[in-house]
Amino acid sequence: MTANTIIPVLINGATEDRVSSLDRGLLYGDGLFETIAVSNGEPVYWSRHMARLQAGCERLGIPWVDADRLADEARGLLQGVDRCVLKIVVTRGTGGRGYRPPPEPQPTRIIQRHPWPDFPARCGEQGVTVRLCEQRLGYNPLLAGIKHLNRLDQVMARQEWTDPDIMEGLMADTNGNLIEGTMSNLFVVQDQVLITPELGRCGVAGIMRAAVMELAGELPLQVALRDFGMTALLQADEVFLTNSVIGIWPVVRLGEHSWPKGKATQQLQQRLADLHREGNRRHDQG
Amino acid sequence: MTANTIIPVLINGATEDRVSSLDRGLLYGDGLFETIAVSNGEPVYWSRHMARLQAGCERLGIPWVDADRLADEARGLLQGVDRCVLKIVVTRGTGGRGYRPPPEPQPTRIIQRHPWPDFPARCGEQGVTVRLCEQRLGYNPLLAGIKHLNRLDQVMARQEWTDPDIMEGLMADTNGNLIEGTMSNLFVVQDQVLITPELGRCGVAGIMRAAVMELAGELPLQVALRDFGMTALLQADEVFLTNSVIGIWPVVRLGEHSWPKGKATQQLQQRLADLHREGNRRHDQG
Repeated sequence: MTANTIIPVLINGATEDRVSSLDRGLLYGDGLFETIAVSNGEPVYWSRHMARLQAGCERLGIPWVDADRLADEARGLLQGVDRCVLKIVVTRGTGGRGYRPPPEPQPTRIIQRHPWPDFPARCGEQGVTVRLCEQRLGYNPLLAGIKHLNRLDQVMARQEWTDPDIMEGLMADTNGNLIEGTMSNLFVVQDQVLITPELGRCGVAGIMRAAVMELAGELPLQVALRDFGMTALLQADEVFLTNSVIGIWPVVRLGEHSWPKGKATQQLQQRLADLHREGNRRHDQG
Repeated sequence: MTANTIIPVLINGATEDRVSSLDRGLLYGDGLFETIAVSNGEPVYWSRHMARLQAGCERLGIPWVDADRLADEARGLLQGVDRCVLKIVVTRGTGGRGYRPPPEPQPTRIIQRHPWPDFPARCGEQGVTVRLCEQRLGYNPLLAGIKHLNRLDQVMARQEWTDPDIMEGLMADTNGNLIEGTMSNLFVVQDQVLITPELGRCGVAGIMRAAVMELAGELPLQVALRDFGMTALLQADEVFLTNSVIGIWPVVRLGEHSWPKGKATQQLQQRLADLHREGNRRHDQG
């Protein structure tokens, strides 16, 4: 996104691109968001995104917004658009007394249509170089897993490097367990087991992470939720990153260490591409 | 603040109460804030608040806004107003690519004039009852001390109770060290030593906290920055809370345990009241 791109926005269903400066989303990060890939005019994994958003609202105590209404609003914003990224933000709205939420919050719904990001195709094809970030993730079990608006950890981490050849930074927790990338989830393959951190104490449980774990079940690939540190990462057979927009990026380099673009990673990429083609075919016929 | 109170707001100097839904303050909590008591039309500890805000901007890599301009804008908003609370928010503005900040951020300055909160006078006079919150503070040394906009920990903690007789909740870090209240800093007095947590790994370094530590130096009271847990809290001679708006609240009860409103706490309250009277007298003569 460049500074002068016009981003179409709906706020509480109205064509409006500004929110109250008293909105708790701004004052406290008191809200949640989803970043949804749109392919052939259709939001990919819409129900999964809605389920996570709803779970996040429940965790924060924000009344759930009507998913049908969100879907209608999203559809309106997507008319005539083939490929883009939909960002949905739900905040607790205004009011309350300081940190204390109001007894009956009126959530703010924000839907933004962003251009498809111009990540080079080679990221998925040839893999990416990553780095290890200095910024750590603190333990916060009551907020772990959900995609809330308190994202300074990620902003600080992403600010650590400017080298355009490094596409992502890995983040460890305060005990040195690797948890995720700044904008992606982290997987390793070791001896035909697909391993990703459990995210019970920090991290965001990505939609593509869940989708990939399911796809792995269709391949002869065991899945394990398990913490691991730098040593296990460097010893892994394959490493890759996932998110809803990038899909799967093989990790091929971190400092002096390199990994091949492995077989399991390629199979998962292939299976994901097939799924999307099937989804598109259904859409074309529908 | 009730839902229908009108809060005068200046945004980047203009009479405007809304911000872009693309502002990074909303999307990521990418910014800082100050809550400043205004007494006799003057912001109390203005320079200290500006110094902390500037330090926060430096920590996050947000260009420092012109403090003189902020002061001018605040003055404009305070005309004819004797007593209120000024809230200043500085965000990194819009732009950037996902979490990655734009190379030349244009910060957003928000100044809001809130009514003076109606905390009962007895809180300072007779002391308050507090509770221990379940929500913990994770370690985050790179963000500790500054007053950034990622405040879900505090929102979650403040949501844990509704009993109006409990005025504040204490928050521990993930190792059980007591760090602060949801909206205040925590002090104990033990054997004539004033102790407050160090805040190197989490917590907000309050302006009133610093002021009270200085005042303690004028009394025969040693000051120590030291972590302590529940046992030390319960054994303390005196316990109190500070923030810029409440000043000093003695803590007199937590569950079944009670503390007296102690001598050191009263001396500090007295010294603080004297200071403010002096400040007001200077202002009246000025």
